[in-house]
Amino acid sequence: MLGAGSWGTTYAKVLADAGRDVVLWARRESVAAGIRASRTNEAYLRGIVLPDNLYATSDVDEALDGVDAVALGVPSQSMRENLTVFRDSIPVGVPVISLAKGVEIGTGLRMSEVISRVGHIEEPRVVVLTGPNLAVEIAQNRPTASVLACVDHAIAVQVQKACATGYFRPYTITDVIGAEIAGTGKNVIALACGIADGLQLGLNTAASLMTRGLNELSRLGQALGADPATFAGLAGLGDLVATCSSPLSRNRTLGGRLAVGMGLDAAVAAAGGQVAEGVVSCRSMRDLAHRHGIDMPITEAVFNVCYRHMAPADMIRSLMDRPHTPE
Amino acid sequence: MLGAGSWGTTYAKVLADAGRDVVLWARRESVAAGIRASRTNEAYLRGIVLPDNLYATSDVDEALDGVDAVALGVPSQSMRENLTVFRDSIPVGVPVISLAKGVEIGTGLRMSEVISRVGHIEEPRVVVLTGPNLAVEIAQNRPTASVLACVDHAIAVQVQKACATGYFRPYTITDVIGAEIAGTGKNVIALACGIADGLQLGLNTAASLMTRGLNELSRLGQALGADPATFAGLAGLGDLVATCSSPLSRNRTLGGRLAVGMGLDAAVAAAGGQVAEGVVSCRSMRDLAHRHGIDMPITEAVFNVCYRHMAPADMIRSLMDRPHTPE
Repeated sequence: MLGAGSWGTTYAKVLADAGRDVVLWARRESVAAGIRASRTNEAYLRGIVLPDNLYATSDVDEALDGVDAVALGVPSQSMRENLTVFRDSIPVGVPVISLAKGVEIGTGLRMSEVISRVGHIEEPRVVVLTGPNLAVEIAQNRPTASVLACVDHAIAVQVQKACATGYFRPYTITDVIGAEIAGTGKNVIALACGIADGLQLGLNTAASLMTRGLNELSRLGQALGADPATFAGLAGLGDLVATCSSPLSRNRTLGGRLAVGMGLDAAVAAAGGQVAEGVVSCRSMRDLAHRHGIDMPITEAVFNVCYRHMAPADMIRSLMDRPHTPE
Repeated sequence: MLGAGSWGTTYAKVLADAGRDVVLWARRESVAAGIRASRTNEAYLRGIVLPDNLYATSDVDEALDGVDAVALGVPSQSMRENLTVFRDSIPVGVPVISLAKGVEIGTGLRMSEVISRVGHIEEPRVVVLTGPNLAVEIAQNRPTASVLACVDHAIAVQVQKACATGYFRPYTITDVIGAEIAGTGKNVIALACGIADGLQLGLNTAASLMTRGLNELSRLGQALGADPATFAGLAGLGDLVATCSSPLSRNRTLGGRLAVGMGLDAAVAAAGGQVAEGVVSCRSMRDLAHRHGIDMPITEAVFNVCYRHMAPADMIRSLMDRPHTPE
C-alpha cells in the first residue's frame, strides 16, 4: 500500500484483516516509524490499532519487493510525480489498485489513465477502488459495501477475493470511466452541499443538489463512454450520499466557510492549508465538461464561487431560478 | 386542501404564497378554529404563521365549494374511506392533487388508483405531488425542488404554474407509477436506515442501504410500468435522500427503537401510537413484490424485523452476507 493517509492506512488494515501480509509505505519516515513503534498512525488515523501483519516503511523498494499486488493512495494531483518514482519498482504483471479520486488538471486524464501512461501499467491491470467509503468508519470495522472497477473482470474478482472481510464487502464492475468520473465529481457536489448547509438551507436543498448533481455527473460520464448504471450504483449514488452526509468532511467544512463569505484562500488557510478535493475537482471537471460540450450547472456554480467571486447565495439562486421545465 | 396535517398545511401555505385563495379542511373543528383564530396550526405545524389568503374549515362542502383544484392530504390507508365522503363534493373536471404516499393494504392499489376508482376522478386529472419535501423546511420558506406527476402533462403544468414560488420549484413528469412507487418505498428504506443508525453502523451503511434500496424500488417500479429515470430523479433519489437524512423523521425514530430491541408494538406505543409509514409500506410493498416476482431483500428484511421477530443485527448481517457478485 503506497500512501499512509487515512484512506491508504484504512485499506491497508482491510487487506491485513482479510489475511494478506501488507507493507504500508509512508512518504515520511516519522509516520512509518510511528506505526512500527505504536501500531497506530497517529497523524492520519488516530486511535485505530493496526494488525500485526501490517508492516510500515518509508523505503519504496522495500515496500514493493516481491509483492503480488500494489495499491496507490497518493493525492490525485501528485500521482504523476509519484509514479515516476514508483514505476521502476512495481513488479511486472501484478494488479495495481487506485485509491485516488480525481482528474488531472491540464491533461484532463483520469487517475487510471495517468497510472497506465506514466506508470507503464497495462490498462487491464488497473483496478479502481471506490464506493461509499468514509475511511474512519471502515477503520472502526463498521460494515460497508465497496466497488472494484476493472476493464478485466477477472482481475477485479482476484482483488475482491483478496480484500473481502466481515465488514468490507466489495462488488465488482467493469466500468472504470464511470467509477472515476463519479468518484471525482462527488467531491464537487459535496462542496455545493457544504455551501448550502452553511447557508442553512436544509435537507430538501441538499437532496436536490445531490440528485441534480448526480444527473450532471452521469451525463458527463456517458459522453466519455461510461455506463449510466454506475451512477445509480454504489460507486455513484452510494459514494455521493456518504460523502455529502458526512459532517466531518473537508468539502463540507470548506463549503460552510465559503457560505459565510470567506474567500477561497482564507477558507483554505482556516483549514490549516488543507485543500478540499472539491476545490480542485470543480476545475478539472468543468474543463472536461467544456471539452465535451456538457452542461453542468452545479459544477459551474461551484467553480464560480471558488474562482470567480460569485456570492454563495447567488449560486443557489442561479440554480433555483433556471426556467421551469419537465425534469 | 383536504387534510391539515403538517404536509397538507404546508402545501396549503405554498399555494397561498403562490397567490391562490386557499381553503384548508381539517377533520377536527378544533384544528380549523385554531387556525382561524391564531393563523397557526399548533397541533401539526407549530410556530409557522399562515398567510391571510388561507381560510380553515372543518366543513367539507364549504371547503370544496367553487374550487378550481383539490389537493388530498389524508393518510394513505384511510384514503378510500375519506373519498367516499369527499367525492360527491369534488367539482367535476378540476385537477385532484395527491399528497398521499402509500399502496393500499389488501388491494395493492397505488393512491392515484384509489382516488381514480373510489373518487370517480378520471386518471388524467390526478396529479401526484412528491419529491424531496420535508414539510417543516418548506414551511420555513427554505428552498426546495418538487415533482408533479400526471399522465396528462398539460394538467401537471397547470398545477406547476399554480403553486410555484420563490422557495418552491416544481418540476413535471408523466410517470405517475414511478412517482408513487418511489414515494411509498422510500419510507421502507428510511426505516431500514433508522435501524442501521440505531445500531450505530455509520454513514457508509446508510448510503449502501439507500443505493441498494433505490435499486430494488426501481426494479419493482419497472415491473409495474414505471420509467427508471424517475427513480434517478427528484421523486426517487431526491425524496429518498431527504427522508433518510432527516433526524426528526418518524421512520428514523422508530427504526432506532427497533434496533435497541423493542418490539413493534412497544416502539409504536413509545411514539404515542403514531405508526411510521415504513411499517405499513413494508407490508404493502412486499405484497406487490411477491405478486410481481421481484426480489426486494431490504423490504423483505424490514418486514421480517417488524412482523417476524427478526433481530435487527441479523437483518443487517443477512444483507451483508449475500453472495459476492458483480453489482
